[in-house]
Amino acid sequence: MLLDQIKKTNDIKNISPKDYAALAAEIREFLVNKISVTGGHLGSNLGAVELTMALHLALNLPEDKIIWDVGHQSYTHKLLTGRRDGFETLRKYGGMSGFPKRKESDCDCFDTGHSSTSISAGLGMVHARDIRGGDYTVVSVIGDGSLTGGMAYEALNNAALLETNFIIILNDNNMSISGNVGGVSTYLNNIRTSNAYLDVKDGIYYAIRNTKYGEPVVAGIRRAKNSLKQLVIPGMMFEDMGITYLGPVDGHDTNALIRVIGEAKRRKNAVMIHVITKKGKGYAPAEKHPARFHGAEPFDVETGVPKKKKMKANYTDVFSTVMIKMGQRNEKIVAVTAAMPDGTGLKRFSHAYPERFFDVGIAEQHAVTFAAGLAAGGLKPVVAVYSSFLQRAYDQILHDVCIQNLPVIFAIDRAGLVGSDGETHQGIFDLSYLSSIPNMHILAPKNKWELSDMMKFAEGFESPIAIRYPRGEAYDGLAAWRAPVEYGKAEMIYEEEGIALFAVGSMVKTAEGVRDGLKKEGIPCSLINARFVKPVDEEMIRRLGNGHKLLVTMEENVASGGFGERVRDCVENAGLSLRVLSVAIPDEYVEHGNVELLKQEIGIDEASVLRRVKEVWNRQ
Amino acid sequence: MLLDQIKKTNDIKNISPKDYAALAAEIREFLVNKISVTGGHLGSNLGAVELTMALHLALNLPEDKIIWDVGHQSYTHKLLTGRRDGFETLRKYGGMSGFPKRKESDCDCFDTGHSSTSISAGLGMVHARDIRGGDYTVVSVIGDGSLTGGMAYEALNNAALLETNFIIILNDNNMSISGNVGGVSTYLNNIRTSNAYLDVKDGIYYAIRNTKYGEPVVAGIRRAKNSLKQLVIPGMMFEDMGITYLGPVDGHDTNALIRVIGEAKRRKNAVMIHVITKKGKGYAPAEKHPARFHGAEPFDVETGVPKKKKMKANYTDVFSTVMIKMGQRNEKIVAVTAAMPDGTGLKRFSHAYPERFFDVGIAEQHAVTFAAGLAAGGLKPVVAVYSSFLQRAYDQILHDVCIQNLPVIFAIDRAGLVGSDGETHQGIFDLSYLSSIPNMHILAPKNKWELSDMMKFAEGFESPIAIRYPRGEAYDGLAAWRAPVEYGKAEMIYEEEGIALFAVGSMVKTAEGVRDGLKKEGIPCSLINARFVKPVDEEMIRRLGNGHKLLVTMEENVASGGFGERVRDCVENAGLSLRVLSVAIPDEYVEHGNVELLKQEIGIDEASVLRRVKEVWNRQ
Repeated sequence: MLLDQIKKTNDIKNISPKDYAALAAEIREFLVNKISVTGGHLGSNLGAVELTMALHLALNLPEDKIIWDVGHQSYTHKLLTGRRDGFETLRKYGGMSGFPKRKESDCDCFDTGHSSTSISAGLGMVHARDIRGGDYTVVSVIGDGSLTGGMAYEALNNAALLETNFIIILNDNNMSISGNVGGVSTYLNNIRTSNAYLDVKDGIYYAIRNTKYGEPVVAGIRRAKNSLKQLVIPGMMFEDMGITYLGPVDGHDTNALIRVIGEAKRRKNAVMIHVITKKGKGYAPAEKHPARFHGAEPFDVETGVPKKKKMKANYTDVFSTVMIKMGQRNEKIVAVTAAMPDGTGLKRFSHAYPERFFDVGIAEQHAVTFAAGLAAGGLKPVVAVYSSFLQRAYDQILHDVCIQNLPVIFAIDRAGLVGSDGETHQGIFDLSYLSSIPNMHILAPKNKWELSDMMKFAEGFESPIAIRYPRGEAYDGLAAWRAPVEYGKAEMIYEEEGIALFAVGSMVKTAEGVRDGLKKEGIPCSLINARFVKPVDEEMIRRLGNGHKLLVTMEENVASGGFGERVRDCVENAGLSLRVLSVAIPDEYVEHGNVELLKQEIGIDEASVLRRVKEVWNRQ
Repeated sequence: MLLDQIKKTNDIKNISPKDYAALAAEIREFLVNKISVTGGHLGSNLGAVELTMALHLALNLPEDKIIWDVGHQSYTHKLLTGRRDGFETLRKYGGMSGFPKRKESDCDCFDTGHSSTSISAGLGMVHARDIRGGDYTVVSVIGDGSLTGGMAYEALNNAALLETNFIIILNDNNMSISGNVGGVSTYLNNIRTSNAYLDVKDGIYYAIRNTKYGEPVVAGIRRAKNSLKQLVIPGMMFEDMGITYLGPVDGHDTNALIRVIGEAKRRKNAVMIHVITKKGKGYAPAEKHPARFHGAEPFDVETGVPKKKKMKANYTDVFSTVMIKMGQRNEKIVAVTAAMPDGTGLKRFSHAYPERFFDVGIAEQHAVTFAAGLAAGGLKPVVAVYSSFLQRAYDQILHDVCIQNLPVIFAIDRAGLVGSDGETHQGIFDLSYLSSIPNMHILAPKNKWELSDMMKFAEGFESPIAIRYPRGEAYDGLAAWRAPVEYGKAEMIYEEEGIALFAVGSMVKTAEGVRDGLKKEGIPCSLINARFVKPVDEEMIRRLGNGHKLLVTMEENVASGGFGERVRDCVENAGLSLRVLSVAIPDEYVEHGNVELLKQEIGIDEASVLRRVKEVWNRQ
């Protein structure tokens, strides 16, 4: 095995060029085998094998810096930097992260997770290098999907003025997680389909063009002298901005990649290398189903079929079904996603009502203000988005939706701990950042039926409204509790006295368990489903003030600015002498791992909460 | 006066075309006279007079929709829609807003304030129009400065695929608030300086080019047939994306503008009209000093000199001076601004240390992640930014700076109420959105010396840190209280018993007055300067627990997620029986007006706080 010769950073440089293809094949086999067991991002990693090899061969790590945009394509990079054993614990609690981590290796120079950050970070490092007198190379590797994110463009706009070397590699597989959208995508596609691969030899680059009109244009341009020659080089759009464009280059030809990176290093300005890759390359099921193998659960290598059959519906499925029904009965319902038609469950809606479905690409800011425009135009938009990605649109929610009090519905998926993607993806801030915004309303369902009921409530609501629900299986307990959703009203599930557990969304199930534990010890305990995080049900809180001595708020969100603080405000303002214990996520980032383990670690699982509640109860 | 004939929307259509120039002159005179009295955005409005007239002449309001990006250039639009009298109360409390407001007129179809939102909103309205079967025209008017904001690009990328009419007017004055930056700016400048104005006649448009190589290229292209013709039309960059480009057009030629808008209306896709205007057009002082007349204080019309001489230093001045000193003693200090070198006070730093100064354009997201890159590269970046604009970078602070615990300093100006710019610009959310982020540290100075001391503290601090300070005059009281800034420590100013006033930043001064009022009535009162909003000084809170019965937190920030809730948490966790009264901004947007009036209105001025504190005190 060639791979056995690679034990640490730069060992790849001992591999003979004639063996590059064989090494790439071994890496692919390794990745497929490992990810089939642990799960993880497969397609993007299979696509980036040769590109990563070429970077490691052409650069000198860890002195040179590679910033991996999003970062889920960094597996080969991890493999080539001495982290082969890490794949046993990939994305497991305490194990290797699925993303670059500075704390994991000195070859990971910048943590990533969300899209479109790499050019900004790389540009910062370039300036830091020059100011501090370093002479290393900085390379940002960004996918064509990430290039639809506005901040990538903000960074390109600034990179354009550089008079020093900075390499941007556009890893173009014509895919976000699902397909790509937008004018730039069409533009890149035109370059791609022209079959015009760049050939780099001896430091002189020239484009071979076989388009229909290539000949006469080249002739015309030749007469127009050099100053205009870039007009017809593919990538004119980037050249327009002032960035040297090299490409397109075959992203599965290691030697061609090494040559073009070498050429790029000689430039005294920002260079974009346009590399054409295939997502899932070399593993037939992943090539065929790129969306399914983007983030894969453990699967059978032979067939590509997931090992664990999904048994129960998850919240995304419930949302998906509700959207179909809402779309049917209400013509004003339109749906917006930022590159997540599959992940958010909007795929079915997109097939049923294509003219009322909008995939805007990885562009959360635009998604939200676009929805504000749809609402201002008299429609009822539903923005379906993951909690951690909606952070990108905080200002747009505050400034474009809520100041005007526009009736946009936010369907916030992956709210709470998400597990194996780790700290960059945990959806644990939304209750805080949304609560601070005037005119916003926030709900969270206790079970699958309530998500449906809340969506229906939102449909008839004339202000901004957010419904947040967690990743994974939808809870199907407490089926009998299905009183209509009323504005600002919590739901009393069990009313006793002593302790009142006041829980938000996913924590209602946990609270049931905590209550059982308390009852076993003879401690009387009420259970209330908050339903509304904003506004908090003040009447309910006053009611709890009678007969209860301890109010326990429970939420899968950071404490700061969350539900517990809303409740504490009310208790204080109502002048109640009610002790409030706030169960929430502490003020720290939560790493990757199994959600149940993570909950135990931060003390919001059933056993921990039970212990804490009893402790406080026994003290009073 | 021609202007006297314009009493309501569409009255301008009764003006004879031969009088357009005279009307434009009258409008300019009106604007200069009014703004010289009230203050307001002058330069951008003087530049957009003919463009606004042309839009009103070519469109049919209020059916047709105009979205004004940022919106501070909408004065002529207000004048032409029956709001002439509003200029008497422009930006005053209860008076006319300086920005478009749906509640002010049916001709204001979308509220704006922050940059780069108009294309997203417009695109939403276009789809709403088509889905609901309307046939009105939607026009987004965006400046070249706003085009550096990433979300404008996200929107353009989506607009490119339209198969229905949508007009984007690029109002290009080659300026943000100060000068413009970046590759796109250079690109637009190249078009501008080519003197190639578009002439539109009878629906056929052609470009007259007089560049050196124009002739041979046109010849070569002609041979290359139509499919390639757009290659040499100015605006190729937008055409690359799939957006029809018309221009450039002289933005001070009303008839040419009317013709090109008419031409654009006939297209069945997204059209960008590139209009060249001059900021401050027609008023010599504003043409000469565009930055000073961007947002002007009342001035003398004859000379352009501000009427009110600035007496005391404001916090921006203090920051400006501190930065010069820090830059001198510490080579690692670098400064980043998003198009606000003047407003943030970084201009002097930019002159002193040009190689360590970065104006990234209107691009707050990039600014923050770029700073993270600078910090990862071993530098000490200071991001100077207005509170309300930093909302744009919430995810970048959380995801790129704080997860990696990078030592970026955020100097947050205009934190608190800003006054006449109103709800879109109030800096009243930063304590909330920053507090929820792990690893973030937040400070606020009580007076001008403390800002300086806190910056020095931040310089030596190895984690993300934010210092927030308000607009306007820096407080120069409490000069004797200048104990060193210590990590997480509040400052006891007066220690008594009874009531403890625990105030943040600007509210320390208010608290002094409240304390005086309480003392007059014989109520004992301590005064504590919080200094740190995060982490809160728990030791101080426990100390206050002895001898005090009422703790009053005071902050110029919304209550939700703010300082008061941090303190309440501590009180609860420490098990203190201390009543907490939280003085903060209520859960609503705060409109424009004099800051003192606004504070009275929302109950955070000295008299209101005194009244509330006494009320609670007397009740206990």
